[in-house]
Amino acid sequence: MTISPETEHPVKAFGYAAKDTSGILSPFNFSRRATGDNDVKFKVMFCGVCHSDLHMVKNEWGMTKYPVVPGHEFVGVVTEVGKEVQIFKIGDKVGVGCLVGSCRQCDNCDNDLEIYCAKQRQTYSSTYYDGTITYGGYSDIMVANENYVVRWPENLPMEAAPLLCAGITTYSPLRFFDLDKPGMHIGVVGLGGLGHMAVKFAKAFGVKVTVISTSISKKDEAIGRLGADAFVVSKDQEQMQAAANTMDGIIDTVAANHPFAPLLMLLKTSGKLVMVGAPEKPQELPIFPLLMGRKMVAGSAIGGIKETQEMVDFAAKNNITPDVEIIPADYINTAMERLTKSDVKYRFVIDIANSLKA
Amino acid sequence: MTISPETEHPVKAFGYAAKDTSGILSPFNFSRRATGDNDVKFKVMFCGVCHSDLHMVKNEWGMTKYPVVPGHEFVGVVTEVGKEVQIFKIGDKVGVGCLVGSCRQCDNCDNDLEIYCAKQRQTYSSTYYDGTITYGGYSDIMVANENYVVRWPENLPMEAAPLLCAGITTYSPLRFFDLDKPGMHIGVVGLGGLGHMAVKFAKAFGVKVTVISTSISKKDEAIGRLGADAFVVSKDQEQMQAAANTMDGIIDTVAANHPFAPLLMLLKTSGKLVMVGAPEKPQELPIFPLLMGRKMVAGSAIGGIKETQEMVDFAAKNNITPDVEIIPADYINTAMERLTKSDVKYRFVIDIANSLKA
Repeated sequence: MTISPETEHPVKAFGYAAKDTSGILSPFNFSRRATGDNDVKFKVMFCGVCHSDLHMVKNEWGMTKYPVVPGHEFVGVVTEVGKEVQIFKIGDKVGVGCLVGSCRQCDNCDNDLEIYCAKQRQTYSSTYYDGTITYGGYSDIMVANENYVVRWPENLPMEAAPLLCAGITTYSPLRFFDLDKPGMHIGVVGLGGLGHMAVKFAKAFGVKVTVISTSISKKDEAIGRLGADAFVVSKDQEQMQAAANTMDGIIDTVAANHPFAPLLMLLKTSGKLVMVGAPEKPQELPIFPLLMGRKMVAGSAIGGIKETQEMVDFAAKNNITPDVEIIPADYINTAMERLTKSDVKYRFVIDIANSLKA
Repeated sequence: MTISPETEHPVKAFGYAAKDTSGILSPFNFSRRATGDNDVKFKVMFCGVCHSDLHMVKNEWGMTKYPVVPGHEFVGVVTEVGKEVQIFKIGDKVGVGCLVGSCRQCDNCDNDLEIYCAKQRQTYSSTYYDGTITYGGYSDIMVANENYVVRWPENLPMEAAPLLCAGITTYSPLRFFDLDKPGMHIGVVGLGGLGHMAVKFAKAFGVKVTVISTSISKKDEAIGRLGADAFVVSKDQEQMQAAANTMDGIIDTVAANHPFAPLLMLLKTSGKLVMVGAPEKPQELPIFPLLMGRKMVAGSAIGGIKETQEMVDFAAKNNITPDVEIIPADYINTAMERLTKSDVKYRFVIDIANSLKA
């Protein structure tokens, strides 16, 4: 018996889905589960368009389950809560990020690192514990377990939804790898959705920020608009040499393969190169530069739910929001095309409430 | 005017030197400087034979200045001190490791990390501040600035000289990368001069140790003789899988290129793979395993002088000594040949005082 996405659950839902590897998104009727005892149901208001949505709709990571309703950074208003839910009530603003479930029993879950739980469930295109496929935020309503719901601060605009992925992905490594101390100096490689958030958080921490880019064209933007302190063109050996041994850390957001050696050179002794982008093929890692300065290369993925809450609270307090371009739902395929060309500053956000109509 | 090593300084010295890239060591008359105001002069008693000596005598790293007197882990008895020297006196036991100078002005020097000072001077085959070439511990006497001399604890045998390189090289990363907490679990890759010291220090810290090796042949040795808790054959996928996600860190002593992915798999979330061996070519580093567990790959070189003192004091207190094979000076070429084949458990130490005769 084939189960239809439209009838497998009792609550009607509507969104945009890609049906095949063309990645073209089109209107899609599906369903959400009834609000369970520990669930929060909310009307989606805004949903960010993450670069990974683009990979997923085309099954470029080989893990997509079609039809796929993308969206893992979205914010809305609570319409119903389960009877066990204590901390959310109808009318609250809430958000959901990349995760909707984890085992809650392993060391990672115990340490508020649900994102590294081997049994975690992603917000879309993942098989949930009840056997049904999860659907993301390009949709009108959401039902999620309260443990994966974040309280959205009153004074934080709901269109800042990309904080729930791009924000936490850069905030978390700055915190965990101790790159958040006033007076420190960090580099940010790549000035896209992730990179521009790394600049904003680091500046809020009182850290000096140098943007490292292949092209001089982003210099005015980096310094004038985002508030970076300096800009280095990575292909300019003189500029790179002048910045050698000056950085406590680097947040590297680039998802294509690129040379590590020039970046390692920029680090001080015990400096940290932290990857948040994920090049497909292995990177070449020269070992001598690591040894000769006790340097390290690390990776970091998104962040846990507790830290995500901390991050949005910090963002609200410090007026940190992503730079976004608000789009209607039916613009999504054009937005995806533009995203392929990095033609956005710096994140598309779908105005779900005003433009998604069943 | 050519300056002769034999006459450039006033004090006659004798040792073993390689004269060319054959790497063959032969008796060598040279000279040491007069004991300066801040210098310590000592009669060398024991000197370890480090694997890097082998590279250096053959100029395999392209930085050898011939004739080269190797030896950067040696211990002896003070015979003279400069008039400004307060903390050492005639008759004291002392040692010298890999460094005999640094700028004492940079951040690295300020932070007791002289080993990362850009202007550091190595114990042998380095151009010292006076323009002469440094000569190492395969020799009868040594003169060194007091800042690079370590006090040798009374109850620590002088033949434990390899602590000054193999010891500190493994002690330092265990400390710095927080892999020294009782109850932790670390892996040690490669069971040679460095690896066997990593096992001993980690055990002394109360850390569980698993030796990871390509060959089962070292198992009895690792567990029975060195006190490791477990042994995993890296080529045995079942054993590796069973050890997956169990280690807080790995000390990797292997100097040949080898796959990182299986080692990263062994690490828990936020686990640390620390290289102390230096493969010549870049290693292949897959990025997904780093991201999916916030893991890192780092490097570490030897250690600073203050930490070296701390390490020998710790070794004395905890009865930690390297396993050595004592050899006479004229056995050095045979020892080098055997070292090429890793035929030593685990370090050759030259009995300088009893066998080196001018």
